[in-house]
Amino acid sequence: MNGAQALVNTLADQGVEICFANPGTSEMHFLAALDNPRMKSVLCLFEGVCTGAADGWYRMKDKPASTLLHLGPGLANGLANIHNAKRASVGMVNIVGEHSASHLKYDPPLSSDIEGLARPLSHWVRRAESATSIAWDTATAVGKASEHPGQIATLILPGDTAWKDAGDRVVPAAAAPSRKVPDVARIDQIAQVLRSGEPALIILANKATRGRALELAGKIAAGTGCRLGSQFFTARIERGAGRVPVERIPYAVAQGSAFLASFKHLITVETKEPVAFFSYPDKPSLLKAPGTVVHPLAEADEDSEVALEMLLDALGASGIAPRIQERIETPVPSGALNPVSIAHALAAALPEHAILVDESLTTGRESMGLTMGARPHDLINNMGGSIGYGTPVATGTALACPDRRTFCMVGDGSAMYTIQSLWTQAREQLPVTTIIFANNSYAILKAEYANMGAGTPGPQALAMIDIDRPTIDWVAMAKSMGVPGVQVTTAEDFHAQMVRSADAEGPVLIEVKLY
Amino acid sequence: MNGAQALVNTLADQGVEICFANPGTSEMHFLAALDNPRMKSVLCLFEGVCTGAADGWYRMKDKPASTLLHLGPGLANGLANIHNAKRASVGMVNIVGEHSASHLKYDPPLSSDIEGLARPLSHWVRRAESATSIAWDTATAVGKASEHPGQIATLILPGDTAWKDAGDRVVPAAAAPSRKVPDVARIDQIAQVLRSGEPALIILANKATRGRALELAGKIAAGTGCRLGSQFFTARIERGAGRVPVERIPYAVAQGSAFLASFKHLITVETKEPVAFFSYPDKPSLLKAPGTVVHPLAEADEDSEVALEMLLDALGASGIAPRIQERIETPVPSGALNPVSIAHALAAALPEHAILVDESLTTGRESMGLTMGARPHDLINNMGGSIGYGTPVATGTALACPDRRTFCMVGDGSAMYTIQSLWTQAREQLPVTTIIFANNSYAILKAEYANMGAGTPGPQALAMIDIDRPTIDWVAMAKSMGVPGVQVTTAEDFHAQMVRSADAEGPVLIEVKLY
Repeated sequence: MNGAQALVNTLADQGVEICFANPGTSEMHFLAALDNPRMKSVLCLFEGVCTGAADGWYRMKDKPASTLLHLGPGLANGLANIHNAKRASVGMVNIVGEHSASHLKYDPPLSSDIEGLARPLSHWVRRAESATSIAWDTATAVGKASEHPGQIATLILPGDTAWKDAGDRVVPAAAAPSRKVPDVARIDQIAQVLRSGEPALIILANKATRGRALELAGKIAAGTGCRLGSQFFTARIERGAGRVPVERIPYAVAQGSAFLASFKHLITVETKEPVAFFSYPDKPSLLKAPGTVVHPLAEADEDSEVALEMLLDALGASGIAPRIQERIETPVPSGALNPVSIAHALAAALPEHAILVDESLTTGRESMGLTMGARPHDLINNMGGSIGYGTPVATGTALACPDRRTFCMVGDGSAMYTIQSLWTQAREQLPVTTIIFANNSYAILKAEYANMGAGTPGPQALAMIDIDRPTIDWVAMAKSMGVPGVQVTTAEDFHAQMVRSADAEGPVLIEVKLY
Repeated sequence: MNGAQALVNTLADQGVEICFANPGTSEMHFLAALDNPRMKSVLCLFEGVCTGAADGWYRMKDKPASTLLHLGPGLANGLANIHNAKRASVGMVNIVGEHSASHLKYDPPLSSDIEGLARPLSHWVRRAESATSIAWDTATAVGKASEHPGQIATLILPGDTAWKDAGDRVVPAAAAPSRKVPDVARIDQIAQVLRSGEPALIILANKATRGRALELAGKIAAGTGCRLGSQFFTARIERGAGRVPVERIPYAVAQGSAFLASFKHLITVETKEPVAFFSYPDKPSLLKAPGTVVHPLAEADEDSEVALEMLLDALGASGIAPRIQERIETPVPSGALNPVSIAHALAAALPEHAILVDESLTTGRESMGLTMGARPHDLINNMGGSIGYGTPVATGTALACPDRRTFCMVGDGSAMYTIQSLWTQAREQLPVTTIIFANNSYAILKAEYANMGAGTPGPQALAMIDIDRPTIDWVAMAKSMGVPGVQVTTAEDFHAQMVRSADAEGPVLIEVKLY
């Protein structure tokens, strides 16, 4: 067994089932090793698709995928979506090919400081020193990626460590998965706050926006009358009919501050107090009102399920039924496409257990409240703010959950960043409906131009935030990569095409023409 | 004048005429400042297009362009083509937006270690400290980028330094442009080598593959009988009829070594001795034969024109006429498309002073020798080996030279990396003919799989280097972004479409169907 085979076998032993890859010459032995029935390999035509797909995989599976990237530049191409994944507490194992040590000293064209490129966005970086230690390195990487919260682990693989004999595989003893438990005193203090009756918002994040943790939060809300909120962006939230409803803190600084103004207490769960996404000349960075007190119930690395259980016990409210969202039957909308009719169409069309990946920015994101009573579904957001995350993440969620349909709502500007995802979706015949909101503009920037107090954009500045001239033909774009596409111009057509796509075997693209 | 305006005005004062941009919220004041008649702004739909286009601009203009990138992830998206530019000794000024210092401490979602991301691939990195110092910082960045060889300068621009008042602009005194001159003793020693009659190859690179330096090398070759060569990849070479002919050292290790075996002396000009692109289990890293001596005539930071002039003087051969390539009239080929018929079609079709950007890998690059006697043209190669450089670089060369036609030859796998370039080409109506060699495969990797001794690829490994399933419809792809496209299946059609494209006002895409 050579180093590459040891690596792939160790990944599989440690529970990594999939590798999103764009290989190059230096990874040929790794490629050979991927011919292993225990590892599914998925080819992506750009590394940003690999890392985004690994992100989507983790969001649904709660365990890391691997990526295979070609030296420093291949890693660099994947970094923006690694940034987004890192901000979503996603675990990921990146394997980065590298020249053999004996070749590196000649500074060949493709060499670069891979550790330097990896460190700013990885929690753990290691260069494999030899084929014989690679199993150990790999198991360590998977262990790191599997921690709570998930970590970005990057393993650099010099060519000779891939092709030389690996000997016996030795791996560290598996650490028992454990999460930190919060302090009892902290729990009691928060219980006291909730009993006081003063207005309080529990802000849920990461693992606490779904499953048993969410249900526990719903009980606390039912028992104390406090409200439940999430940051504007969440890694994954279970929502819709039958789930505990969670209010979304608005994105814009003024609306976010207004929403939070009425709370005397913010209780944070796996997150911190709300912060403005950007800095503006005359706006605050922190959104809470002066005098509002922040209480961390569970830090990012703590077990929020245990924390919420402890809090419920302290409140003596374990027996109560959680607050639950009722089903709202939304009539099929008709006529003009706008944020409200789009949200209504979505609410009416979403099939049960759909996965909704949202990168819709101006078009969709402010009206998601209208889908609260839709059939139960998972909503996934971009936590890192680097655009081009949606279509890769949807590729990953669809591979993770082949029996569920992923709907990917994405603005045209964002979609263009990593549009190569469509090809992988066609190749793997993935159940993804890509919804392009085509407004021919970085519309969010028009609003931000004003928010920034940059005056009225001149023609040249305006030209830099409009993406008309030429308009992008999304149906042709989809066709070029083997994805059937359709354009809709009315709300009823949009609804009908979403419903039809839910029955499709493979991917479909719907261009929502907004101009 | 605010900091952003000071920055743009200083760029313009220092001779930077163009900015390739993909702005975000934090760059709104910079965007406003781009409304300046002294600065052309070009919108790109992905940052890899921005940095590649800046590379292409420098290759033709010998002076830096600027880019505008959105925080760490925007920079990360541009890094692969910054790597390629750096390896081609290209100067470039990257402006990277950043949160204000007062906001950074809250670790908002888009924050990351921008310096950390910039350093591995920049020669110079600075964070602007205030609006009042930004003119100084900008002039320093341009000075750095304009050095010989060109440097990558990255200036990080926090929001508040853009929107605050800049006061009077103060810039450092311009340094007189100077290049190091080689030592006379070294020149005399090389003159002695050339006089000895022992077989010698002068390997030209960077500024020495064109203009007066190339002509001087042609005189030395004519006077001494030595041969002239280039690395397989050059930043820009002037070639074709009427130019001094330069032999290309083959790419593959065996062929490269065979080519070099007959030389007793390698004389390097702005480059180092030839090194294999990758490391292979049983192949050497250095291509020269044992016993061959390497003589640096001009180091990368020295003035090769002066060095060649000095050498010519030392040889007493200044009066001699340079070796010159004659025009070869290549008949229009017909029939099947293959590397030879493709090269013949190219040789016959290339108009005078065309710019040829080559990222054709397996299809085109080995047969470029057949275009030696074509009409005079410039050939540009990828020096860094990160694919996805071709279409962005062609975007930049076309903006730099609007009166010349750029032909961009690119493999399908490479083209998919940064295909967003087509949109900018359509928007700016650039004179670019994009030639896609569609073999539905990372064909180079099939050869490399064998070269690596990785055995016979299994079905899963093979699937990872074939990019069929689905085949990409390049004409639809071009249409989606407003570029007219055509597919050719014969050599005569390929020739005819190239000739026709030369008369087009704007961009054209030709899919050369090879499967």
